[in-house]
Amino acid sequence: MTARLRVHSFSMSLDGFTAGPDQSLGDPLGVGGEQLHEWAFATRTFQGVHGDDPSGSTGIDDQMAAKGEVGIGATIMGRNMFGPVRGEWPDESWTGWWGPNPPFHHAVFVLTHHARPPVEMDGGTTFHFVPDGIESAREQAIEAAGGLDVRIGGGADTIRQYLRAGLVDVLHVAVVPVLLGSGERLFGDLPGITDAFDVRFTPGDAVLHVEMTRR
Amino acid sequence: MTARLRVHSFSMSLDGFTAGPDQSLGDPLGVGGEQLHEWAFATRTFQGVHGDDPSGSTGIDDQMAAKGEVGIGATIMGRNMFGPVRGEWPDESWTGWWGPNPPFHHAVFVLTHHARPPVEMDGGTTFHFVPDGIESAREQAIEAAGGLDVRIGGGADTIRQYLRAGLVDVLHVAVVPVLLGSGERLFGDLPGITDAFDVRFTPGDAVLHVEMTRR
Repeated sequence: MTARLRVHSFSMSLDGFTAGPDQSLGDPLGVGGEQLHEWAFATRTFQGVHGDDPSGSTGIDDQMAAKGEVGIGATIMGRNMFGPVRGEWPDESWTGWWGPNPPFHHAVFVLTHHARPPVEMDGGTTFHFVPDGIESAREQAIEAAGGLDVRIGGGADTIRQYLRAGLVDVLHVAVVPVLLGSGERLFGDLPGITDAFDVRFTPGDAVLHVEMTRR
Repeated sequence: MTARLRVHSFSMSLDGFTAGPDQSLGDPLGVGGEQLHEWAFATRTFQGVHGDDPSGSTGIDDQMAAKGEVGIGATIMGRNMFGPVRGEWPDESWTGWWGPNPPFHHAVFVLTHHARPPVEMDGGTTFHFVPDGIESAREQAIEAAGGLDVRIGGGADTIRQYLRAGLVDVLHVAVVPVLLGSGERLFGDLPGITDAFDVRFTPGDAVLHVEMTRR
């Protein structure tokens, strides 16, 4: 069985935005964007993966968040999700938002236009930098996953690139009952997406879970 | 109590489109757009209002559709919802899509750039043509509604104009689990919408019902 490319717990406002307007280094989620992630922060899964003291909700939102931790052997992310540094890497000092022991514990492939040697972190996470495109990152990640699936972490632009290439197998979107008015979209101008997925709605505690599975 | 402007049973695809791409006179809902309305056609409310023989589903989708028929004394719609004729009216022959006895049974105000005398239909529906803007249509409709509410029928562009003006009090959107890829959007570039509404999700039989109520 071929490894699948999966997206999990990707939050979107009711009006279709995955980040608010006016994103900046100081406000990477854009104005109002932090509201999109409150449901996930509240879950035991998130608290357990990202915190020292597992607590948090254990309802449907948690069950859906937990699916994203199962059967994943490697992660792909865009450079903006890795960090705020743009352009050439000034030095090797930036090693992600997650501290010395990132919560991945496997190989992470960062899409970038600027090559850089791999960075080995505590706990089994190694950041690899991929300057030669999404197809190369996919191949390397599948190889590294050793038979498990590959999670595309984000952001929206990275997911859209893989959607446009027809390479996303599972896409779990959490629709949050807030309106951001404007911002960065996940969907739109993706003609190939029509009829490509089975779509299932599951009402959660704080959000609507949408599971899209490639037909 | 002031009359409210209400939108009901307005369908939107998961990716945010209220009509598919390539709308034309022969395909007014755009490619794939008819899928957005299947949930409503299936309800007893729709069959009862638009058909001779009331039948159809009686679950949550029907209950939500039925709310749009309660307490409405007048309707506002865009010209494209009234018919396919563009520009100056060539004659008085077009009287809507709905036959001699339209399902409104009250005054209907059609936004248009081209004035035309009112058209009185069977069953109490009169079409009035409003060339002087959404605020004028609102005032006339509230007057005609005689203490009841005003329903904004659509389409998306008309609803967006009223949203932008801050004049929509209730907006019920049915999110349909299909992807259209591209098309006409309801939401986007509406900065004033942030924090303007309470948002409630109600899972239906075939769709997710979103009820937005002005705070």
